[in-house]
Amino acid sequence: MSVVVLGTVALDTIKTPFGKRKDILGGSAVHFAMSCRLFTPVNLVAVIGKDFPKKYIDFLREKGIILKSLLKTCGKSFRWEGEYKDDLNCAITLNTELGVVSNFKPQLSEAQKNIKYVFLANVDPDIQRDLLSCLHSPDLVVLDTMNYWIKNKKRSLLNLLNKVDIFLLNLEEAKALTQETNLIKIAKSLQALGPKMILIKKAEHGVFFYSQKFKFSLPAYPTEEVVDPTGAGDTFAGGFLGYLAKVKRLNPTNIKKALIYGTIAASINIEGFGIEKTSQLTMQALNQRVKEFRKILVF
Amino acid sequence: MSVVVLGTVALDTIKTPFGKRKDILGGSAVHFAMSCRLFTPVNLVAVIGKDFPKKYIDFLREKGIILKSLLKTCGKSFRWEGEYKDDLNCAITLNTELGVVSNFKPQLSEAQKNIKYVFLANVDPDIQRDLLSCLHSPDLVVLDTMNYWIKNKKRSLLNLLNKVDIFLLNLEEAKALTQETNLIKIAKSLQALGPKMILIKKAEHGVFFYSQKFKFSLPAYPTEEVVDPTGAGDTFAGGFLGYLAKVKRLNPTNIKKALIYGTIAASINIEGFGIEKTSQLTMQALNQRVKEFRKILVF
Repeated sequence: MSVVVLGTVALDTIKTPFGKRKDILGGSAVHFAMSCRLFTPVNLVAVIGKDFPKKYIDFLREKGIILKSLLKTCGKSFRWEGEYKDDLNCAITLNTELGVVSNFKPQLSEAQKNIKYVFLANVDPDIQRDLLSCLHSPDLVVLDTMNYWIKNKKRSLLNLLNKVDIFLLNLEEAKALTQETNLIKIAKSLQALGPKMILIKKAEHGVFFYSQKFKFSLPAYPTEEVVDPTGAGDTFAGGFLGYLAKVKRLNPTNIKKALIYGTIAASINIEGFGIEKTSQLTMQALNQRVKEFRKILVF
Repeated sequence: MSVVVLGTVALDTIKTPFGKRKDILGGSAVHFAMSCRLFTPVNLVAVIGKDFPKKYIDFLREKGIILKSLLKTCGKSFRWEGEYKDDLNCAITLNTELGVVSNFKPQLSEAQKNIKYVFLANVDPDIQRDLLSCLHSPDLVVLDTMNYWIKNKKRSLLNLLNKVDIFLLNLEEAKALTQETNLIKIAKSLQALGPKMILIKKAEHGVFFYSQKFKFSLPAYPTEEVVDPTGAGDTFAGGFLGYLAKVKRLNPTNIKKALIYGTIAASINIEGFGIEKTSQLTMQALNQRVKEFRKILVF
């Protein structure tokens, strides 16, 4: 089953203790696609400006990403500039230029409207709603968001949550939205807002999945080679949803496996700048690290 | 195999959003003993003042704790006063009165000197060294410490680490000691100081075990009923070392099981004030929650 992802296709400028990269290919939809593509075809819905380098478009096409709904319009492409100091767990945003993203109206082809697996990456909830309204009858909608929208578009976000199956967000964002500090209380509060399932990303501390019927806790894969954590959350989402779209059945075993694939894809993402590592990733290499990960897990 | 624990037997005054308790029985050695006793006899090495309530001594004896080396001397008992606000993960120390602990010279009976399993809870590293020098040939020495000793008695602590098998400490303390932020780098740096194995406590994010041969990551048991987290780390250590002392063999399977028992004992500890919950804990109830925990773990 193919997947549709709404998000950003960005030009990222990133500085970490390991170096600096200027205007590299990034953005939530791109990071998601790099891990999701290993499991299933990925339809990318995003907007870029006239200034967007053709080489990056060619690169995405070569990777098999379906670009029918990647819109190119007048204006500047989305740009993000960030820095990580010694503590690579903390991103410092230096600059964000929304550019063409601010007026983006997502569009889908007729065939894409029938896609069943949907990832609404962290963009304006009104744009997330627009995409969702294009879809005929999705089976599984996963939504991500961030503090900025929780603060500035809370009503839009809350209206949207009723239509979401899995609400995926960072622990800090979850705390901000619920005003709770206990993990279970946070998850229950989020569930009361509409989504059937809650998936909390805790960065280097792993992920926590919560639904009425079952809950799962998974630590992160402890890697020493952290070079650039940008996009780890979206890479996680790509592995997670990609696996679920491939196996189609949403049962505890498949959710657990999806959490593992997402976690391992994210651990590979952070070992290089941007999509350096995930763009070269194969299913074999992913499975190899899954095997390593199982040795670390306690059962 | 019995266990010896060096630590504090304290009078704790604790305030949390769920109430306040004044001068309740607490301290690292007591919290450790409450979980460890379920697996093996516990020899408690600590000091109390003349003011220490007899009812607490009677209570410890009733629980089967061996009190031969619980010294009673002139002076005031160790007192800790702390508060937890809405975020129960953060303890605010309001007052610490060392009292008789400041001049404590631990003593062991001849029989106790042959004990093989040792927990040196968080006290002055010089006192930890004194106890260690009393022991004939321990098989497994686990040492805990805290920021205060890292800052004020770093040399004593470092001298001691060569004699330690498992160095157990909080993530924040581990970061302070190593000046690293990455979990693997932290563990490697700590190992370079002497201990064969490193066990990092990450509070609500679980624990991480590191040795040359294997590493394990285990999330915390997500409980909603957090009433008072005081002593969670020592309760974890008690379940962990208690299990290892019972099974005797230090292999990956046993270490994993010990991590689970420690984690579950800690999750029960935080559901009541002081040792309210762990003092009533049975092996059956502990195993019941271990079973629940296994459902949450992803493998």
